Amino acid sequence: MARIVMKFGGTSMAGTERIRRVAGIVKRQQEAGHEVAVVVSAMSGETDRLVNFCREANALYDPAEYDVVVASGEQVTSGLLALTLQAMGAKARSWLGWQMPIRTDDAHAKARIESIDTDEILASMASGEIAVIPGFQGLTADNRITTLGRGGSDTSAVAVAAALKADRCDIYTDVDGVYTTDPRIVAKARKLKNVTYEEMLELASVGSKVLQTRSVSLAMKEKVRVQVLSSFIDEDAPAADTLPGTMIVSDEELEGLDMERQLITGIAADKNEAKVILTAVPDRPGAVATIFGPLAAANINVDMIIQNVGREDTDTDVTFTVPQADLPRAQAILEEASAVIGYQKLTTDPKVAKVSVVGVGMRSHAGVAATMFKSLADRGINIQAISTSEIKVSVLIDADEVELAVRLLHTAYGLDG
Amino acid sequence: MARIVMKFGGTSMAGTERIRRVAGIVKRQQEAGHEVAVVVSAMSGETDRLVNFCREANALYDPAEYDVVVASGEQVTSGLLALTLQAMGAKARSWLGWQMPIRTDDAHAKARIESIDTDEILASMASGEIAVIPGFQGLTADNRITTLGRGGSDTSAVAVAAALKADRCDIYTDVDGVYTTDPRIVAKARKLKNVTYEEMLELASVGSKVLQTRSVSLAMKEKVRVQVLSSFIDEDAPAADTLPGTMIVSDEELEGLDMERQLITGIAADKNEAKVILTAVPDRPGAVATIFGPLAAANINVDMIIQNVGREDTDTDVTFTVPQADLPRAQAILEEASAVIGYQKLTTDPKVAKVSVVGVGMRSHAGVAATMFKSLADRGINIQAISTSEIKVSVLIDADEVELAVRLLHTAYGLDG
Repeated sequence: MARIVMKFGGTSMAGTERIRRVAGIVKRQQEAGHEVAVVVSAMSGETDRLVNFCREANALYDPAEYDVVVASGEQVTSGLLALTLQAMGAKARSWLGWQMPIRTDDAHAKARIESIDTDEILASMASGEIAVIPGFQGLTADNRITTLGRGGSDTSAVAVAAALKADRCDIYTDVDGVYTTDPRIVAKARKLKNVTYEEMLELASVGSKVLQTRSVSLAMKEKVRVQVLSSFIDEDAPAADTLPGTMIVSDEELEGLDMERQLITGIAADKNEAKVILTAVPDRPGAVATIFGPLAAANINVDMIIQNVGREDTDTDVTFTVPQADLPRAQAILEEASAVIGYQKLTTDPKVAKVSVVGVGMRSHAGVAATMFKSLADRGINIQAISTSEIKVSVLIDADEVELAVRLLHTAYGLDG
Repeated sequence: MARIVMKFGGTSMAGTERIRRVAGIVKRQQEAGHEVAVVVSAMSGETDRLVNFCREANALYDPAEYDVVVASGEQVTSGLLALTLQAMGAKARSWLGWQMPIRTDDAHAKARIESIDTDEILASMASGEIAVIPGFQGLTADNRITTLGRGGSDTSAVAVAAALKADRCDIYTDVDGVYTTDPRIVAKARKLKNVTYEEMLELASVGSKVLQTRSVSLAMKEKVRVQVLSSFIDEDAPAADTLPGTMIVSDEELEGLDMERQLITGIAADKNEAKVILTAVPDRPGAVATIFGPLAAANINVDMIIQNVGREDTDTDVTFTVPQADLPRAQAILEEASAVIGYQKLTTDPKVAKVSVVGVGMRSHAGVAATMFKSLADRGINIQAISTSEIKVSVLIDADEVELAVRLLHTAYGLDG
């Protein structure tokens, strides 16, 4: 017998017919002899509907009341899943964020989980009841509802799995695992049996939207075994123990599992970047702080930063990327701060994309970056910027060339299936 | 300064535009110098949508999980009203049923309020915050959500007004007060300035759906001054203190207010009745219990009961009414119990209506019933059954004649405006 946390997203919970499919998958897991807790998202579209109500009511909304409104979506689906499980003859009950409770800080609309009380829920699960838990929501010390930010249900699931000391956290999504790259771009993309937490983090941060980044960090920190699975499996398929999803594991576990692993695990592409170039910024201490301070204060996430030598000795060019959606705001902030920063010209380019090769293997192998640069150069793809981490090399290229670049690299690193 | 509880129904809360109107009315009340709490319903149609989800998920739904699902509708509108009030510059916060908490028994889906904790909410109101409270919901001793049954928000409002020791509970509805009869039937119907709790109870129970009966009983018991007002008033109208709604008062208060009051307060009609006749029921002790026991067990509300002398000495005919919606179930139950009851024939008539004259004045005046019977007889309207209470006389007639009967009686008792 194992203790399993299962998580289903909004697409899987969209309507009573789909909830019935989910209930079938959950019940089969229990019938396989496991203790089961399920974390659910709101019906797809519902959170958007509720967020729109809040915006209409108050453009500058109070996040505490926003949380009261938007948390209701998961409340509804958790009650409905419990009802559906009961209709199938299983014992089940819902545990709302304030009932367990899932304690968070008071940063409404983007709260962080601090602790989860588990005594009651463990007793309920031990008695054979399936615990149904709305994702995305929690409770502050002063008894108010919080939400964790969009996509927060993955984080709820991992946090619940950690608190319950679950053997596994199965995340059911609309893909059936983590692939070497986006199968819509590269037909030869292969599903990975295993991927490490760090690889998953890098893949998530560069556009592979299988899991929320935060949930992967938390899983790594709490050593939660996470499995990514398809929620569109046959209702008569066996329980998830034997299903071919992707398991997210630690480096150590990976070595035991997969000795013959490729150097590179996957290729990720992110088309949601925009480039900003500030020309002739004075080359003096503190100059860079005048650029990125105001952007950070406006909560704009700056990604790649490259500082070039300027045309004269006394100034420098600064290039960086921001999420495309934040570009207009970033531009406005930089124009307002132009006197303070002292740049000569502000240029922007929303038509860029970031392509990354990711793999723990590159820690012990030289030449990974060189292969990338050569493959792209051979086909005349211009690299506008480069950034690297221990297990990732990213380049910024023209958005029109992203599919070609991903296909080239997938072949170059021997990932084609 | 007074302390006011205001209540708005689903029609008033249907969408952000209407919620803005409500917020305007609420804010004006606060600006008139009062401490204000607002009780809100779900957006109209929303509770039906949620109930349907529950039915689809599980026809024999667990009322505890049903409550989790349906309570979300009021959670959404309370958050949205708080946001809207804030957008208008007022201080406001929502207080969910479990946050105050509003403590109820554990009869899920039809819970009764036991107590309301008010320390926190009174402190918040004293600091100038408008308290926004979702109607219809509460919390059991073991920390689970309950709902009070359909239309329960009126009861929530009255209970909150009692707990907060409010000076007045203003119920905003889609009519602008309580009328001598349905203005759609009688154009000369007049709005009443005052009506007593008992009259309101009788009017509610015979089809005047202005307030939920339970809320009126509670107001009478807790001596809460309830005012019925239209929510469709001009946004620039003065605060409700001077608005011409209908005030529900005690007998004593009424005497002070309205010395020259009519003998009869109002005429009510209820077309949702169905008649059942059991012919030749054995005339022996316990016979009637065999009829009404099984109906009560099935939660079918029997209204008028008339026992006639049968055709022979040894048996009797029993006539009674049930809600039209329950007629098929009642029929099935009686057919199943036919051997036990021992009747000869079961006849039903769904085409009947109940017309009632209501007024505290009839306590001290003879001849009220006689006037009614004569007025109807003069126009050839046949009375199928009669029942009376201290302040009400009801007759059962053919449904086709109900509008005529109401008009006749409205004139006969001098109510025409």
